[in-house]
Amino acid sequence: MTRKTLLSHKPVIIAGPCSVSSRDQILRIAREMKRIGVHALRAQLWKPRTKPDSFQGVGEKGIPWIKEIKSTIGIPAAMEVTSPQQVDLVAEIADILWVGARNMQNYELLKRISKENHPVVLKRGLIATVDEWIAAGKYIGIDRVVFCERGIRTGADAMRFTLDLNAALSLKLDHHLPVVIDPSHTAGRRDAVPSLAKAAIACGADGLIIETHYNPEEELVDKDQTMTIEAFEDVVSRIKEIYTITHRLS
Amino acid sequence: MTRKTLLSHKPVIIAGPCSVSSRDQILRIAREMKRIGVHALRAQLWKPRTKPDSFQGVGEKGIPWIKEIKSTIGIPAAMEVTSPQQVDLVAEIADILWVGARNMQNYELLKRISKENHPVVLKRGLIATVDEWIAAGKYIGIDRVVFCERGIRTGADAMRFTLDLNAALSLKLDHHLPVVIDPSHTAGRRDAVPSLAKAAIACGADGLIIETHYNPEEELVDKDQTMTIEAFEDVVSRIKEIYTITHRLS
Amino acid sequence: MTRKTLLSHKPVIIAGPCSVSSRDQILRIAREMKRIGVHALRAQLWKPRTKPDSFQGVGEKGIPWIKEIKSTIGIPAAMEVTSPQQVDLVAEIADILWVGARNMQNYELLKRISKENHPVVLKRGLIATVDEWIAAGKYIGIDRVVFCERGIRTGADAMRFTLDLNAALSLKLDHHLPVVIDPSHTAGRRDAVPSLAKAAIACGADGLIIETHYNPEEELVDKDQTMTIEAFEDVVSRIKEIYTITHRLS
Amino acid sequence: MTRKTLLSHKPVIIAGPCSVSSRDQILRIAREMKRIGVHALRAQLWKPRTKPDSFQGVGEKGIPWIKEIKSTIGIPAAMEVTSPQQVDLVAEIADILWVGARNMQNYELLKRISKENHPVVLKRGLIATVDEWIAAGKYIGIDRVVFCERGIRTGADAMRFTLDLNAALSLKLDHHLPVVIDPSHTAGRRDAVPSLAKAAIACGADGLIIETHYNPEEELVDKDQTMTIEAFEDVVSRIKEIYTITHRLS
Repeated sequence: MTRKTLLSHKPVIIAGPCSVSSRDQILRIAREMKRIGVHALRAQLWKPRTKPDSFQGVGEKGIPWIKEIKSTIGIPAAMEVTSPQQVDLVAEIADILWVGARNMQNYELLKRISKENHPVVLKRGLIATVDEWIAAGKYIGIDRVVFCERGIRTGADAMRFTLDLNAALSLKLDHHLPVVIDPSHTAGRRDAVPSLAKAAIACGADGLIIETHYNPEEELVDKDQTMTIEAFEDVVSRIKEIYTITHRLS
Repeated sequence: MTRKTLLSHKPVIIAGPCSVSSRDQILRIAREMKRIGVHALRAQLWKPRTKPDSFQGVGEKGIPWIKEIKSTIGIPAAMEVTSPQQVDLVAEIADILWVGARNMQNYELLKRISKENHPVVLKRGLIATVDEWIAAGKYIGIDRVVFCERGIRTGADAMRFTLDLNAALSLKLDHHLPVVIDPSHTAGRRDAVPSLAKAAIACGADGLIIETHYNPEEELVDKDQTMTIEAFEDVVSRIKEIYTITHRLS
Repeated sequence: MTRKTLLSHKPVIIAGPCSVSSRDQILRIAREMKRIGVHALRAQLWKPRTKPDSFQGVGEKGIPWIKEIKSTIGIPAAMEVTSPQQVDLVAEIADILWVGARNMQNYELLKRISKENHPVVLKRGLIATVDEWIAAGKYIGIDRVVFCERGIRTGADAMRFTLDLNAALSLKLDHHLPVVIDPSHTAGRRDAVPSLAKAAIACGADGLIIETHYNPEEELVDKDQTMTIEAFEDVVSRIKEIYTITHRLS
Repeated sequence: MTRKTLLSHKPVIIAGPCSVSSRDQILRIAREMKRIGVHALRAQLWKPRTKPDSFQGVGEKGIPWIKEIKSTIGIPAAMEVTSPQQVDLVAEIADILWVGARNMQNYELLKRISKENHPVVLKRGLIATVDEWIAAGKYIGIDRVVFCERGIRTGADAMRFTLDLNAALSLKLDHHLPVVIDPSHTAGRRDAVPSLAKAAIACGADGLIIETHYNPEEELVDKDQTMTIEAFEDVVSRIKEIYTITHRLS
């Protein structure tokens, strides 16, 4: 998959569980995502976690499950990498590589990714400026990057983070770069995700990355911000309408 | 005008110049706002300015102009007050009182306003928490307040301020309070205002406060963020459609 | 008292309770402050409070107590004003006027103060830039202002606020303006006040404003950050030594 | 070297150039640091840089120079590592390992470091909370970590970053963990470094990390914040006096 192919979807939607926890879980969600028309599956085998004793992802064990999903269900996989070695492991099966916020300035990782050809979702650091974010993209190769705004940490956080649409908009207006929004992480609570998702598309974002699960309470990571699949479908249909209004010539 | 009347407009739109600069200017803009169907006119006679040698507004001199607009054009006036004495001067002609971000915790002003009956636009302080904002509203009387999010100052400001839709959404979800958005101040640049205005309505805001002028370059204050009236009309029509999509039952 | 007189103390120390609560309280503390050699007493009759139902200060009732302290104990009084009318009430007895952080951009208040001659402690707004702070000082008259850094609100507040010594230092290095530090408000906890007070003086601040009480648990406002008088005396003696080391020619 | 040995110096001082640029440069500075009594040399062979076209450090080429310094001059070396592979390269010669702010949450790096025995300087992320910082330390092994506060990014940065002494103090008061301060990065300008260094020690920090060079203008990285060796010596002598005052029993 190239970045151009990915961005041919207007808006582009990447969705799935916060992390892969079992074969059954990820296959079931992959089927639902395929049915809804999602363009790529969140397929996170490694999770960077603040605390060393938190669940760190299933790791390599999940690679066959993703291979199975790709061959039987046929939905592309967006896979996070957190070290150069993991790029070696997943480059072959991932359709989209993914760098988390905490690794936005992990330059040795970015340099390793620069040797592949996948499109790369580059999440913004927790307080990164637009210039720093773009500079990180240049380590990878700016033509392969899809920038992902996921909320910054501010002195007046009303939710987990503050979604910074001004920065996303600056990427569009000033730099003509593709940008998607992750409303799940910025909200930290599922009841706020639909409103932020709609806001992101109305603001001109190219797409969304959303956490969804058939039973959010089963999620091992970030369950509070994970939507049900029913709520997710409703959001998808509304954002398509909003996208049309936003991009219509006057 | 009561808050209920004001909020019967869905979405409610308050617009006009950043500040009143002459009789001709404000009458001309008032007529345009009336034609477009704006629900209240920005009619700011006093402007709190960071520097003492900046233009501070026309002050009392503008009161007859607002009276004339109300009697001949018939559009309600939203008027900022920056001291208890100004409340004495404008309480009779203003339909909506307005407290700026820098005065959100000017409690002597809030106490004076609490003695009137107007609906009050209460802008959020530059780094106020949701709790502080609501507590300021209680000084006035919470049933009269329309909260206005106008952007916070953060460590990664990509534009003048960061529009904090998470806070606006928290007011709706957690406190069931009315909230409007000022996309002009948060952007600081007119090309970003339409996108942020659409985002605000898609997010669930009850309305917008927008700076517009027939010739933004003539504006004495904040001209860079003031839209032309043509661009403003286009935004108004799109946000009405977005409002419908956002609030439609599934 | 002029600003020059006030700043002839090296370092200058202003101390006392967070707020005046009774005649006995403030007289007893005034005597202790005089004994210790404090240069001005915190004599706050009005307290700007986030919530309308919090204790708002004793108000006018306390004016005779301050008069009594001045005539019998002979310590100068630093008094906060929160509206133009309060300036009328206290201009005669206050030696130092004081503007709180929430009123730093209450320009009608600053303009009223500009008509007096007292030195003025101007606390920094919760997220004010150095330029905004200095501009606020110009409303008063820059030659009368003693700037007071009291902590800013940040995305990573480890305590109540983050003491911003970089800003205090910028006032000294770039603008040659006098600056004192309030370690009590930034800490929000008394065990952290001595360390921050010492840091402030080591950094080059001209003085300190500290909350102290013979029995902090009796304080009606901010008791958690109020030091005992014993601890305060210990701090005073150490900061004098640090001041000497810091300002000694090599 | 163990953490205990390192912290037996009161205060502990780690100093040297921002980055190693040549054999001559680092040997000359190492000799000066030894003469002044510095406890470890900044010996940074790899520099994480915001932009891919900035100087990235001399890399492996510098390893023999550090070996030479250790054998002939006998000053311990503190060496930054930015990827697991670099740990393999330097574990043998480094006395202290060092994790930069941008890598504080590079967990694969932290896990690799956890397999060694060196004391580790762990710089705080640009907006990391105290809890996140300590959690990162636990990935390494909390008993080996010396936490380093280097300034956070805030909405009101008066200098490059805001030195957060409240966070450093919270580490001491609430967690009894060792903390050193880097005044150079927070200031971004050499004239501010001495004041911030003194403030840090007065606040109770265990030591300092300072950038110094015999000719700061020759520095390839961060020259504006690098002190001359003369100015550095003056700071060292004053902070020792301040340390004594701060830690003296009453």
